Amino acid sequence: MGMTMTQKILAAHAGLESVEVGQLIEVSLDLVLGNDITTPVAIKSFDQMGIDQVFDQTKIAIVPDHFTPNKDIQSAEQCQMIRKFSKDMGIVNYFEVGEMGIEHGLIPEKGLVVPGDVAIGADSHTCTYGALGAFSTGVGSTDMAAGMATGKGWFKVPPAIKFNLKGSLQGWTSGKDVILYIIGLIGVDGALYKSMEFCGEGVASLTMDDRFTIANMAIEAGAKNGIFPVDDQTIDYVENYAMATRQFTIYEADEDAIYEQTIDIHLDQITSVVSFPHLPENTRNIEAVGDIEIDQVVIGSCTNGRIQDLREAAAIFKDQKVAKGMRAIVFPVTQRVYLQALREGLIETFILANVVVSTPTCGPCLGGHMGILAKGERALATTNRNFVGRMGHTESEVYLASPAVAAATAITGKITNPIDIVAVNMTRELKKEGGRI
Amino acid sequence: MGMTMTQKILAAHAGLESVEVGQLIEVSLDLVLGNDITTPVAIKSFDQMGIDQVFDQTKIAIVPDHFTPNKDIQSAEQCQMIRKFSKDMGIVNYFEVGEMGIEHGLIPEKGLVVPGDVAIGADSHTCTYGALGAFSTGVGSTDMAAGMATGKGWFKVPPAIKFNLKGSLQGWTSGKDVILYIIGLIGVDGALYKSMEFCGEGVASLTMDDRFTIANMAIEAGAKNGIFPVDDQTIDYVENYAMATRQFTIYEADEDAIYEQTIDIHLDQITSVVSFPHLPENTRNIEAVGDIEIDQVVIGSCTNGRIQDLREAAAIFKDQKVAKGMRAIVFPVTQRVYLQALREGLIETFILANVVVSTPTCGPCLGGHMGILAKGERALATTNRNFVGRMGHTESEVYLASPAVAAATAITGKITNPIDIVAVNMTRELKKEGGRI
Repeated sequence: MGMTMTQKILAAHAGLESVEVGQLIEVSLDLVLGNDITTPVAIKSFDQMGIDQVFDQTKIAIVPDHFTPNKDIQSAEQCQMIRKFSKDMGIVNYFEVGEMGIEHGLIPEKGLVVPGDVAIGADSHTCTYGALGAFSTGVGSTDMAAGMATGKGWFKVPPAIKFNLKGSLQGWTSGKDVILYIIGLIGVDGALYKSMEFCGEGVASLTMDDRFTIANMAIEAGAKNGIFPVDDQTIDYVENYAMATRQFTIYEADEDAIYEQTIDIHLDQITSVVSFPHLPENTRNIEAVGDIEIDQVVIGSCTNGRIQDLREAAAIFKDQKVAKGMRAIVFPVTQRVYLQALREGLIETFILANVVVSTPTCGPCLGGHMGILAKGERALATTNRNFVGRMGHTESEVYLASPAVAAATAITGKITNPIDIVAVNMTRELKKEGGRI
Repeated sequence: MGMTMTQKILAAHAGLESVEVGQLIEVSLDLVLGNDITTPVAIKSFDQMGIDQVFDQTKIAIVPDHFTPNKDIQSAEQCQMIRKFSKDMGIVNYFEVGEMGIEHGLIPEKGLVVPGDVAIGADSHTCTYGALGAFSTGVGSTDMAAGMATGKGWFKVPPAIKFNLKGSLQGWTSGKDVILYIIGLIGVDGALYKSMEFCGEGVASLTMDDRFTIANMAIEAGAKNGIFPVDDQTIDYVENYAMATRQFTIYEADEDAIYEQTIDIHLDQITSVVSFPHLPENTRNIEAVGDIEIDQVVIGSCTNGRIQDLREAAAIFKDQKVAKGMRAIVFPVTQRVYLQALREGLIETFILANVVVSTPTCGPCLGGHMGILAKGERALATTNRNFVGRMGHTESEVYLASPAVAAATAITGKITNPIDIVAVNMTRELKKEGGRI
């Protein structure tokens, strides 16, 4: 019986010729990831195992990105703990603030995940690396501890939904609109414990940055993972941008692979999408949004802080100013993206527009710091979740959208269609070089 | 009887021909300033007065700089309160994050204080504007409220200490070394409720940025204010850099002015100075520091986040990397300084050196956010206070120094003399254009 792309990767890492949906398997891990929130909990579990070394010093990555630079004494102590653990264990890929960025931006650009890998991370958005044709998924801190100790993880082989992408994106739409559109279509549990496998001729028209954004939010449809086929763009990213030093294997779904469902997605027909509070599935086309005044715009995060995202935002901020009374904050996903944005003049555009440019940090996305909302305030954000109280007070609201919508909204002070600020024909050009440096 | 420069400004603003030390006078205020920590308290006092308008909508400045972008719900609510108050009262100089910076960098560069002014601010480092030949001092939130309501403030005329500056600074030394040297000399209460009047031929050799740093820390010697004579550099700053639109008056001390004490300061003899925990007066020359390992370096704040400071730091970071395990964080004092630093390539130098570049905020200086210390950690900072727990845990330590020492320390991981990293002859050149854009 044919296997999906995810199933083939899992089978290979379990040392099996084939696997079936629902089968419990133990797989070898190519990467175990943690951040400053989840790693301290994992370290406690690890210590309880009575083991004094990790399975492989090169296959663990620890990234203090959530509450850094330290927002308070508690977060400083958590960072102190993971810094010491990394040093004691000789973990090669511990990244200090200043040499890093948000984990899901950093890991791909450092070449730490390559096509065909199995990666786990104690962070729900670890599914991001599916953009590279890898199986990657979020786990709890205890699984992270077990992964650090043994290099193995237990999984139940997931069924899959096939998303057959047709045509190509138009105007100001990008990967964010695709994934919000899909979540609006299938709901926040529409892919519960399933693989979202993206395929079809439309894939080629998506940049790597589009794909990272789409895979990143697979978890927001409840998915175990999201995954893209490996094509020339993927290989170029891994070899030339990330300069990965590891060999990688390209897996393809069998022609007779079984999918629970196949959904055609016509990229041409997707407009800018906004998710209303308090669930990502509450989507509306930009034309149907109505008059929604916004207090704060957030552009960045592991979902939308890459170079294409910043280019799109900057193209709209160019020669404009943030509306009076509005706060607009940009978070490049990594120091490398920050540097590229700086060299392309994007940072200057932001500053001239009165946009705050932050060092890479998860910041306000999860209500951490650097842009928390008071009671009654509304944010439009390029982040990934708009749950109750996600960015601050339980009576605040978060609307999710693309960087283009976010920038347009920052300029007018209410949710705005980017074509009302800048004509659309620039977009294709901005995307052409997406993700390269 | 002759008056000091401070006394003459106060007399003129009290409508008196002369004033005497110890006299209680009511003076007209040219600026009343508050931030996101102190203004909410002032608003409560203001509301209790039963007044429904401020004395002058153009003479109040409100700058949300301390815990912004909002670090938590409480700080978001404080900002919400001052934003609403500013709007309700029609306060012209309310600066939203993105269009602003740290108050004591922003106020001078916006031309909101000019020579001869009397300015009060509900923040102890309001004494910064003495660099412009103005009388400016920190007050409590109640005085800020009274100032907003009436445009008047009560003062007891202070006695003065004269600091007679001779020669000029050498090597990597800057204004920070001068003021730390002086505080080391006279102690943290050495100028208690007095004016520190800086004069002598050495003044001309100090850039405006040197003078801002020196005046900024007058409060750390207990002074009511610090003040510099107005010279061509001051006028150039006010007219060409700040583009101030107000007329200003230059006051000079009478030749027979009475000083409690005159202290000669030989600028040539000052070396790089480091203040050890837990008081700014605990100074040592850099040569006498010994081996002190540092976990975090902070460059910025209202004391040392200006363009000259960033140039000095960048000259040392050029082609270098931050030491492994060290966090180095730069905070430009305003968006304008950030932009200038960006255009001069300084931001690129920082990023390439693995330095974190933050948006302007008071951040870790007062233990707010963006770089808080855990138990046992040590920071070297260009900020102004190294009291117990100032930057985090009560068992952490803060060492104060110049941007040059800070950058050198970030590179080696222990307190380092900048001449050990870069030969000194660049310094004069960096300073030449200090403060201009």
